[in-house]
Amino acid sequence: MTDSVIDQARRAKSAARRLGTVSTDIKNRALLRIADALERRADLLEDANRRDLEAARQRGTSDALLDRLALNACRIGAMAEGLREIAALPDPVGQLIDGTRRPNGLDMQRVRVPLGVIGIIYESRPNVTVDAVGLCLKSGNAAILRGGSEAIESNLALALLCSREAEQAGLPPDSVQLIETTDREAALTLMRAEGLVDVLIVRGGSALKKSVLEHARVPVLASLGGNCHTYVDASADLKMAADIAFNAKVSRPSVCNAMETLLVHSSDADRLLDCLAPRLLAAGVEIRGCDRTRAIVPQSLAATESDWETEFLSLTLAIRIVDSLDGALDHIAGYGSGHSEAIVTRDYEASQRFVQEVDAACVYVNASTRFTDGFEFGLGAEVGISTQKLHARGPIGLADLTTCKTIIRGSGQIRV
Amino acid sequence: MTDSVIDQARRAKSAARRLGTVSTDIKNRALLRIADALERRADLLEDANRRDLEAARQRGTSDALLDRLALNACRIGAMAEGLREIAALPDPVGQLIDGTRRPNGLDMQRVRVPLGVIGIIYESRPNVTVDAVGLCLKSGNAAILRGGSEAIESNLALALLCSREAEQAGLPPDSVQLIETTDREAALTLMRAEGLVDVLIVRGGSALKKSVLEHARVPVLASLGGNCHTYVDASADLKMAADIAFNAKVSRPSVCNAMETLLVHSSDADRLLDCLAPRLLAAGVEIRGCDRTRAIVPQSLAATESDWETEFLSLTLAIRIVDSLDGALDHIAGYGSGHSEAIVTRDYEASQRFVQEVDAACVYVNASTRFTDGFEFGLGAEVGISTQKLHARGPIGLADLTTCKTIIRGSGQIRV
Repeated sequence: MTDSVIDQARRAKSAARRLGTVSTDIKNRALLRIADALERRADLLEDANRRDLEAARQRGTSDALLDRLALNACRIGAMAEGLREIAALPDPVGQLIDGTRRPNGLDMQRVRVPLGVIGIIYESRPNVTVDAVGLCLKSGNAAILRGGSEAIESNLALALLCSREAEQAGLPPDSVQLIETTDREAALTLMRAEGLVDVLIVRGGSALKKSVLEHARVPVLASLGGNCHTYVDASADLKMAADIAFNAKVSRPSVCNAMETLLVHSSDADRLLDCLAPRLLAAGVEIRGCDRTRAIVPQSLAATESDWETEFLSLTLAIRIVDSLDGALDHIAGYGSGHSEAIVTRDYEASQRFVQEVDAACVYVNASTRFTDGFEFGLGAEVGISTQKLHARGPIGLADLTTCKTIIRGSGQIRV
Repeated sequence: MTDSVIDQARRAKSAARRLGTVSTDIKNRALLRIADALERRADLLEDANRRDLEAARQRGTSDALLDRLALNACRIGAMAEGLREIAALPDPVGQLIDGTRRPNGLDMQRVRVPLGVIGIIYESRPNVTVDAVGLCLKSGNAAILRGGSEAIESNLALALLCSREAEQAGLPPDSVQLIETTDREAALTLMRAEGLVDVLIVRGGSALKKSVLEHARVPVLASLGGNCHTYVDASADLKMAADIAFNAKVSRPSVCNAMETLLVHSSDADRLLDCLAPRLLAAGVEIRGCDRTRAIVPQSLAATESDWETEFLSLTLAIRIVDSLDGALDHIAGYGSGHSEAIVTRDYEASQRFVQEVDAACVYVNASTRFTDGFEFGLGAEVGISTQKLHARGPIGLADLTTCKTIIRGSGQIRV
């Protein structure tokens, strides 16, 4: 088992060596071929998916998980569309990062090159198979996929299709491989394949991420979720503040850029909450407030210490009233996860202090945290939102699936 | 013990929050004050160093190691000069990486910000204490230093001086801290201080690096050394090739950018080696050659498989004759460490294939690999040469001690 994963990784490394020099045209052709084949072979994919769904039903899987697992013509069309969008993005490989001519005449260029071999460990949703393949191939990387056991039939069908079409478009064999065994040993082998796997991408729940971060010996790019705040400053436009807070909480509460805690300056807290709380409650939001919040919004439950720490990912909102910008900054420094933080203010100095002092991937003034997203940032498709500080921070786009190489052209220079 | 390291890390994190917003002027003032104090207090530093040297002598330490450990007026002056050079470099903090205005009016800027807390684990040479402090403070990071037991008295004296001068220049207390205990437990605690230490930098021998890579739970920036090649192509200017190869091997054999294996195209191998080998042998180089090399250079020993893998870091050179560019590319792909690789050629296509197909931090055409260095690249002081692919690859300069933050300024935008 272990040997077979290592063997796949070796073949991926060999494929990566050739894949790094394939032209953008051929890579795009591969993505478009895969997109077309997905739609043409939708029946076959749905058949494979039905076997996963049937097995899942027999295990008593919840309806919510069955829905995540299900493929249908609409979802297959969305996967194909995603690939066409990736094909339309600029190729990061070969992009010049910077360059200079040194006094001794050496011409130096730092350019983007693929990372090499990207391992992807993911759960449930089979569409990740296709998304990951699209991003890896476009950035010139070989992909080794390791999906969850619940989607193994769907993933096998998808990966086989991707692999075949990629090869027919002219990409090296083994550019796309799926690990066919879904036991823990195979995943651990992938996580520890130092020297063969250049980076591991994790898509899935927090238990999976925790396991990968604990066991991985290869570098990991993980989206670790967001405990995002909106701080309404003393000088805020209260209508704007209420609109931004409502949007940040309610527009899509299940995602990592949604607000989890609202911080309100005490000066206008009653006016803001009088206007905002009824809207939130009407939208089904459960409010957990500090004592002062509860005095203004009697429907709110008492917030506990753990509420400040929690990424609810649901229609639950913690609210805390603070007496100063410093109080808000301290709260965010103590509880924030470094994802997205917003201030609503009309005060120039407060805005400057907030953007400078908050330590997060994305810091907003007078806008909703919900904008933290590859498409909204103009990057196109993304692999997730990094709250790590090294390599990638914020939306992880195609360029983050590359590294750099410095090319130095000379005319016989030696070092004296 | 463990508690005290965690306590230091907590204090560093608190210092880092303030340090990130300190002006360039104040940071430079701190570096210049430290530089002046080093020279003014040289006697005191040499006293402390003498205690380390005495203890080392009693343990029977080799002369080479004693030399690495020793501080004298000249070396102290060099440390001070290094700090003045770092002070003269541009501040990476606040530099704009990129920016755009989105169609919805959001103004987005991605700027460089400090990483936060940098842990440095190092051995022997006490000058690392000062170098690391200079680079960390200039890039707005708090530093936690953990030097080797053999230099503890010197490091204590240097760290105390740095810390005091930094604070008097206006930097937050605890911006510079030394872990005073040198047991393994303290180092392990630092390596595992997730959430407190943002990155670990390792300076030292390969055993230290291996241990850190095995045990660290926080991200590591390590210089893992180089197994560098020079390939002399069929079409090379043989005089240029000989000069470059001689320089790459002999000018400073103990460093990571020195050549370890020379690859020679078979077409002109005898002419090149007839001219080069006597120069190498006269300089004291021990040659370990493949069979064909030995036929041309009878003084050479027989190269074994392990010679191709070895970073000699000495006046030993492996030489292999290959029959094609592909033979050289395969050798480099099989044995190279991804540091610096060079081709000497007059053939355009060979140069293009080499720079595109070699997977390394730095790829040279017609120049010596010895140029891979922060100063030669125009970056100024460096923390080492990364052969990692994530975050930093090649010379690790000040900018690599920063991460990015995206600042988004709006006028009430919400996501629809």
